[in-house]
Amino acid sequence: MKIEAIDLFYVALPVITRTADGTQDSLVVRVRTDNGLEGWGECDASPLISMAAYVMPMSHSNIINISEALIGETLDSPEDVVHLRNKAGKYGLDIQQLDHAISGADIAMWDVLGKYLGEPVWKLIGHSSSHKKLPYASVLFGNDPDETHAIATSIVQRNFQAAKFGWGPMGQGSLSDDIALVQAARDGLGPRTKLMVDAGVIWGDDVDAAYERAVKFADLEVTWLEEPLKTEEVNAYKQLSDRIKANNINIGVAGGEGADFYRSADDMMTNG
Amino acid sequence: MKIEAIDLFYVALPVITRTADGTQDSLVVRVRTDNGLEGWGECDASPLISMAAYVMPMSHSNIINISEALIGETLDSPEDVVHLRNKAGKYGLDIQQLDHAISGADIAMWDVLGKYLGEPVWKLIGHSSSHKKLPYASVLFGNDPDETHAIATSIVQRNFQAAKFGWGPMGQGSLSDDIALVQAARDGLGPRTKLMVDAGVIWGDDVDAAYERAVKFADLEVTWLEEPLKTEEVNAYKQLSDRIKANNINIGVAGGEGADFYRSADDMMTNG
Repeated sequence: MKIEAIDLFYVALPVITRTADGTQDSLVVRVRTDNGLEGWGECDASPLISMAAYVMPMSHSNIINISEALIGETLDSPEDVVHLRNKAGKYGLDIQQLDHAISGADIAMWDVLGKYLGEPVWKLIGHSSSHKKLPYASVLFGNDPDETHAIATSIVQRNFQAAKFGWGPMGQGSLSDDIALVQAARDGLGPRTKLMVDAGVIWGDDVDAAYERAVKFADLEVTWLEEPLKTEEVNAYKQLSDRIKANNINIGVAGGEGADFYRSADDMMTNG
Repeated sequence: MKIEAIDLFYVALPVITRTADGTQDSLVVRVRTDNGLEGWGECDASPLISMAAYVMPMSHSNIINISEALIGETLDSPEDVVHLRNKAGKYGLDIQQLDHAISGADIAMWDVLGKYLGEPVWKLIGHSSSHKKLPYASVLFGNDPDETHAIATSIVQRNFQAAKFGWGPMGQGSLSDDIALVQAARDGLGPRTKLMVDAGVIWGDDVDAAYERAVKFADLEVTWLEEPLKTEEVNAYKQLSDRIKANNINIGVAGGEGADFYRSADDMMTNG
């Protein structure tokens, strides 16, 4: 089949507020093919800047929009999806936003290919089985421990077996303030519900601040501490994870949300 | 002084063509302050996508445009410029295009600060002296050795003492085709004019292809071979530069044009 059209949909809540809630708007991308199929994808990125990467007029041979790279091309196999992702990357070599923006079309191409071949995408990308996932509630911390406790309680009432609390007051006050927030989340969830903490890069490159939280959060059976440091602080991540391992602290360190392209993730895994 | 306005100017040639000439359009940024001064900067980036990063409506607390981060802020010292660059980075934490886009405002802030303090920017950014630069002509290779020779001759006639040839047919044909192009450039320039070659990432991750060119180009007294490999191929850069050093090949390897942010350049310098 051939890609006939790429349609962009900007979706948004009626009012967008200055909160850390990253799902107030989005860019949804539809790929349509000449046999009447369609696939859908979404960019977790600035939707309005990403839209520009699909439609803006050319600047030169390395700044050409994503739609021009994809429309009219053949899409019959997983290899075609990889080839087209790379073609768009070459057309947009000098577009920094490219990786964020292409994600929507990339997902949509896999979706439409799965429909075309009658196969789930996990098979098409090379897996031999699909694993069960444990869904978790992803919420912001309340403004204080009481609010956080109430949020945790409501999550249990909705039968979630795992929850991630992030951002808000975390890291804005003292160490004991941070512990009180996580303690409230743990108390509200009870001992059996998995708890993760997302610090939203709040400690920058401060390994000591991140480490002392990791130790205390591990006592509260936090499964992982996410983004304690800035993505760019690869050496600081290395120091933090080395120290956690050396002292047998039982907590995972998660990161890489800001690793925008392959090498960035590779760098973090190899050197962080 | 306070930043009063940020004005965006999209400048372009009458017709933009699909060539590797990266200076067909541009985004120029003007910063105006409340004491009537103005500073100018330019983004070497997709101008139209970058403009979106200055003006698009907010998506959430980490996707807020650059203008909103800067307008109304105090700009009296080098520390203020650094603080404001970082503030825009925080406001745009989830905007991949941020680093490219902010460059114009960053340069413009330094420019207006220099005017305000009556100091050249090199002093403000911490240097104790300004070094003389050797300007070089930056041109595309001709479509064949004859065209390339003619371009080189015209550069000498215009009294340049250095020239960089890039892209075009380089890497599109065989090893001997590539050598013939560089030989023509060297012949046209004569023995005393410095010659650099920009390969525009054409050999991807192919260390062998890049290495055998480096050896041959060194014989033609090429000062540096620029971007033989993709920016992301940090391990391949390491292999290439190790091999060049081990065999005492007298040529520099330049790269990093695609290193969009601090860690990306740090990664290349540390691990590449």
